[in-house]
Amino acid sequence: MFSTFGHLFRITTFGESHGGGVGVVIDGCPAGVEIDMDEVQAELTRRKPGQSILTTPRQEEDLVQVLSGMFEGKTLGTPIALLVHNKDARPSSYEKFKDVYRPSHADYTYQAKYGIRNWMGGGRASARETIGRVAGGAVAYQVMRRSFPLEVVAWVESVHQVDASGLVDTATVSREEVEQNAVRCPHPEKADQMYKAIDEARRDRDSLGGVVACVVRGAPAGLGEPVFSKLEAELGRAMMSLPAVKGFEIGSGFAGTQMRGSEHNDPFRMKAGAVGTTTNHSGGVQGGISNGEDLFFRVAFKPTATIGKVQQTVNEQGEEVELEARGRHDPCVLPRAVPIVEAMTNLVLVDALLMQQARHPNGAGASIQSEKNGSI
Amino acid sequence: MFSTFGHLFRITTFGESHGGGVGVVIDGCPAGVEIDMDEVQAELTRRKPGQSILTTPRQEEDLVQVLSGMFEGKTLGTPIALLVHNKDARPSSYEKFKDVYRPSHADYTYQAKYGIRNWMGGGRASARETIGRVAGGAVAYQVMRRSFPLEVVAWVESVHQVDASGLVDTATVSREEVEQNAVRCPHPEKADQMYKAIDEARRDRDSLGGVVACVVRGAPAGLGEPVFSKLEAELGRAMMSLPAVKGFEIGSGFAGTQMRGSEHNDPFRMKAGAVGTTTNHSGGVQGGISNGEDLFFRVAFKPTATIGKVQQTVNEQGEEVELEARGRHDPCVLPRAVPIVEAMTNLVLVDALLMQQARHPNGAGASIQSEKNGSI
Amino acid sequence: MFSTFGHLFRITTFGESHGGGVGVVIDGCPAGVEIDMDEVQAELTRRKPGQSILTTPRQEEDLVQVLSGMFEGKTLGTPIALLVHNKDARPSSYEKFKDVYRPSHADYTYQAKYGIRNWMGGGRASARETIGRVAGGAVAYQVMRRSFPLEVVAWVESVHQVDASGLVDTATVSREEVEQNAVRCPHPEKADQMYKAIDEARRDRDSLGGVVACVVRGAPAGLGEPVFSKLEAELGRAMMSLPAVKGFEIGSGFAGTQMRGSEHNDPFRMKAGAVGTTTNHSGGVQGGISNGEDLFFRVAFKPTATIGKVQQTVNEQGEEVELEARGRHDPCVLPRAVPIVEAMTNLVLVDALLMQQARHPNGAGASIQSEKNGSI
Amino acid sequence: MFSTFGHLFRITTFGESHGGGVGVVIDGCPAGVEIDMDEVQAELTRRKPGQSILTTPRQEEDLVQVLSGMFEGKTLGTPIALLVHNKDARPSSYEKFKDVYRPSHADYTYQAKYGIRNWMGGGRASARETIGRVAGGAVAYQVMRRSFPLEVVAWVESVHQVDASGLVDTATVSREEVEQNAVRCPHPEKADQMYKAIDEARRDRDSLGGVVACVVRGAPAGLGEPVFSKLEAELGRAMMSLPAVKGFEIGSGFAGTQMRGSEHNDPFRMKAGAVGTTTNHSGGVQGGISNGEDLFFRVAFKPTATIGKVQQTVNEQGEEVELEARGRHDPCVLPRAVPIVEAMTNLVLVDALLMQQARHPNGAGASIQSEKNGSI
Repeated sequence: MFSTFGHLFRITTFGESHGGGVGVVIDGCPAGVEIDMDEVQAELTRRKPGQSILTTPRQEEDLVQVLSGMFEGKTLGTPIALLVHNKDARPSSYEKFKDVYRPSHADYTYQAKYGIRNWMGGGRASARETIGRVAGGAVAYQVMRRSFPLEVVAWVESVHQVDASGLVDTATVSREEVEQNAVRCPHPEKADQMYKAIDEARRDRDSLGGVVACVVRGAPAGLGEPVFSKLEAELGRAMMSLPAVKGFEIGSGFAGTQMRGSEHNDPFRMKAGAVGTTTNHSGGVQGGISNGEDLFFRVAFKPTATIGKVQQTVNEQGEEVELEARGRHDPCVLPRAVPIVEAMTNLVLVDALLMQQARHPNGAGASIQSEKNGSI
Repeated sequence: MFSTFGHLFRITTFGESHGGGVGVVIDGCPAGVEIDMDEVQAELTRRKPGQSILTTPRQEEDLVQVLSGMFEGKTLGTPIALLVHNKDARPSSYEKFKDVYRPSHADYTYQAKYGIRNWMGGGRASARETIGRVAGGAVAYQVMRRSFPLEVVAWVESVHQVDASGLVDTATVSREEVEQNAVRCPHPEKADQMYKAIDEARRDRDSLGGVVACVVRGAPAGLGEPVFSKLEAELGRAMMSLPAVKGFEIGSGFAGTQMRGSEHNDPFRMKAGAVGTTTNHSGGVQGGISNGEDLFFRVAFKPTATIGKVQQTVNEQGEEVELEARGRHDPCVLPRAVPIVEAMTNLVLVDALLMQQARHPNGAGASIQSEKNGSI
Repeated sequence: MFSTFGHLFRITTFGESHGGGVGVVIDGCPAGVEIDMDEVQAELTRRKPGQSILTTPRQEEDLVQVLSGMFEGKTLGTPIALLVHNKDARPSSYEKFKDVYRPSHADYTYQAKYGIRNWMGGGRASARETIGRVAGGAVAYQVMRRSFPLEVVAWVESVHQVDASGLVDTATVSREEVEQNAVRCPHPEKADQMYKAIDEARRDRDSLGGVVACVVRGAPAGLGEPVFSKLEAELGRAMMSLPAVKGFEIGSGFAGTQMRGSEHNDPFRMKAGAVGTTTNHSGGVQGGISNGEDLFFRVAFKPTATIGKVQQTVNEQGEEVELEARGRHDPCVLPRAVPIVEAMTNLVLVDALLMQQARHPNGAGASIQSEKNGSI
Repeated sequence: MFSTFGHLFRITTFGESHGGGVGVVIDGCPAGVEIDMDEVQAELTRRKPGQSILTTPRQEEDLVQVLSGMFEGKTLGTPIALLVHNKDARPSSYEKFKDVYRPSHADYTYQAKYGIRNWMGGGRASARETIGRVAGGAVAYQVMRRSFPLEVVAWVESVHQVDASGLVDTATVSREEVEQNAVRCPHPEKADQMYKAIDEARRDRDSLGGVVACVVRGAPAGLGEPVFSKLEAELGRAMMSLPAVKGFEIGSGFAGTQMRGSEHNDPFRMKAGAVGTTTNHSGGVQGGISNGEDLFFRVAFKPTATIGKVQQTVNEQGEEVELEARGRHDPCVLPRAVPIVEAMTNLVLVDALLMQQARHPNGAGASIQSEKNGSI
């Protein structure tokens, strides 16, 4: 509990890093939508380890298999079950540490919560669990884009002290630009610095964190459900549920607390016949509901907990011991986090769209926004 | 949708800023718990406007009335309905602006979403909606403290550029210290500066934002449900669902992205016979589950959207107009946000405790943590 | 838990038979719908006791008060809170039996579950709890009928051994016919016999049960969500959640088990250009989804548990005692159950309609049924 | 939507009769429970077709595969994914009828709802979907029986006009007795008559329905959540969600409507130191909560819709056509329905137990019932 996310477009993920496999059941997907499974696979490939020296050298193929819910390339409206088999398991690399709590991992807390854990890898706390999210988000994206010219683009904004914030144009940044380098930062110069920083940390058997930024262009006004499912609340929950995430902010975020109301308020004006704002400190949401401007938010990822350096810790017997991990790991999760952040964004958006659609059948927003709306 | 929060201890809030009243239905509260309604009222009084010149001069009494679910001072296990009647309505102060979209308010987005709105005040987007949350959270707190020596303390950490971060001892800060001044910052000197800053903004017909920090002491290990209801995900959602919130971070948060893994990891050690950590960059959660250390997080509130200065905006007819608001408002919501942040924290915790209890009847965590655990 | 019903059109009821009041919060109601509160009140009046000598002489006025969610006669899309204050409480009539478990009431089970109960009346197990359902259902009906020519008509089909089954034309029976007599059986002769049977039981300090039948005309094909929210599953749950209900059947029900497949199957044929069936043993659902034919189902209500005769029972101290109840009660709940069954039907249908609408914006069913469909 | 059942012990089923496979994700299973997968497989084998000439001759092996959530034979507390691959697909046997709506099947309603369907078999409306339920229920049973001496026994009470009601002793009937014959009726003589009736129908290319009865012995008092998750409401929903079910009744059911209150009420008395009743017309529930007596209910299954006789119907083009099905099918689903009814009962009970446990950690009921209680 709770391995289910979403209200109307609902994913249930399953699987540990070691065991038969990981996957997802997508329930509530609209029927009759053509799904390009190659695109889904492409997202899984973006997420998988072993893409560069920056990421863990585990050679997981992560080939997705459709178990149900599709017929002749289209969704049936019934649950879509997607499975990725686990491979390349090397329990031996974990056996030595089976009773040791790795610092800032979930070993101890899983033991405290469940009284049992699979010590062969990170279990459900492993980034491998996100495979189901990425597959589900990729389906969601195709469902939405059938009707909306929606674009969801995430990128690495900072790694450790290399910061590209303010240097990326949110109005134009594209997945193509993001994919141009292994770091997934669309600013080539900063990407280069990030690459070097990560590589240095890797050689030093250490790890780095950073910030992923994400923009959504083309979302209609009217998405988000007051009061507990405000769009920013659902996005916040979605991102905070990802491994290693320690912070979320939308629009002006924490920096906005240093502005005055008269600076921070976004004046309304007419834009091409529709209501818009001249600035976007709100990040595209007001009162929990999208206002038709770009959604913009940031997600903070801590440095990877798995490092090669010797660390102090305790074991299950309550003895203080030294740990020198030799497992394969990412010195920095940020590049692989990009498709995961996009996937969670898709899942939040598709759910909000369906919810709005349930009550406003003639478009995702009311008539006031009709010129911006499609229908899902 | 969705006006309900929580899975097992579930609140449903209702009510607009103008109309018959606001309130909450608490469903799933354990039976037989003595509830001190004076304490619940006290929390509502902390939340209400008109406490000082820093807050809006509206004289709402906010007296809570119990409609159901209690018998001879104890909970029945049935829904507890709490109602606060609305008073002091002055629709005339809103009438002038009934068709004008106030910048960075939810006027426009509610119109876009619903095609209709109550222009007399902020509707559900008003801070008045939080009355139900505060009442529900106050009941939750009493339920938890029946069994756990749990303490939840929030305070104003910063207002605009006055910053008390690092100056408050999270291990000892108490509600009494927080309540010593109108700003609810437990650092007297910074509180004084904050007071002045807010008063200056008020006189300038402007507004300020800031950060509320919150610590939870005494929470057992084992709380939080992987993977989508991680404790930080539920806290994040809870806080991001509050009016005016733009950011949430737990533990090291955004700043933690600038550390290396070897600095950021929290080494385990034995503390009084139990597993603990020597640092707490994790903020008390690992893998979405509490580890028995203090929970610590921050919430960013934007400057109040209602300001007295003249602003550019548009009206429902799509005309660009000037708005000069004269409504009563808070120049800074931070002081009143403190009990609201605490309330949402209580609601997240009580739900996590009941959830854990459902599967581990002999204490909120498994046996490994028995010395730290109580049972709810 | 769980005092909430529905997924998208969601009611949360609160209140005991004794205490401040009972009511409902309706969350997820589409915005901008004109609601005639007199019609809502009329349904509550149909439900209330004291309508004839057949029902309990308690003089509850059951006047409904709107606390939120409405503006200028229309729904805002925000939670609609409706409250009915409790009146006419006579705890003294219960005090004598405060520690006695009334047979076939919920006194003992509430005590076993919660360890506490309000002995002044039936608490949440009281029929008074259904006020919130009736109010919610009345709003749902108006929402649906804005777009669909939907008719929901329930009636008393049998009381004890007086049976009108097969004598009422489900294709034409109307609320007006049902309301023509105090029993709410549209067959005047049988109604008369039922009246006499109930009156006799009343004078004998005994009680009677019976069956309520219900037909829904005009529901579009495509409603109901496989596999766990099949339309008949949701209807079954809704009806089985009513006080005193012991059975539910749809279409041919239990009698259908005595037919052969070749008799029971409903052949398809074209009807006015649309697919229809020549018989309706299915009761309007196939595979959990409405097929456009009339929905038809029956609900069995046991004889009222409260009787005036002396009964054997035990008290909280575990002593075997005699009970001679003198509380005011209904000798037969059936007449008052009619609006309650209709209300629950409305709640199930509106939820199914919104759910279908979420995924099929161009009508409640897919194009194949367009000629029968409206949109909500 | 909604392929998920349960609140705390939650199953999500997936899969069509044709496609990669069917299965279930069990979320919320308590951790550290030893699960005997052979027992789970045994239940699937009871459910599978081809057990006798009474059931469809399809040779599905239905071997279950564990994908996640188990470690060294114990539950991890994480999602347990169970998969059964589809085999023996013969699309050709369906191809001929791909555009014909089989009477009283879900072909037409799925088309009306989704606008698309997998014509190769019954899709989600197929009995094959229940594999996930049976697997989930088998796990639930083991979880419950770890702590409670709970027994859930279902059997075939009637087939067509052969009726064993009143001839089976609910206090003692065992799974062993039920399994003694292919019909799964523990009354050998009636079983023999049922066998003959089914065989005759089979040879006549026709089908029969009937009633499955179920008793639960050893459930503690206090289970069930007022008001919308009353135990009978959840059981009713669970059973009405099964393919081919048209009715549900608990305790006296429809027959009870023909009794007077003075006959129907169950007098309380002390039984071995605990509160009990002398009769059980209530079927073990009062006010939606178990009272510690045996739970007893009945489920009506219509005759199988698939028959070999020629039938009138229409096709997707709206033409009236004749259908002569030759697919493999069960002439009577009752024998195979027995393990399915038990599985759904287990799922309802385990959820109610966990729910009660969440609020009453010291046993599933309050202290009043401590002598009957265990803890899960």
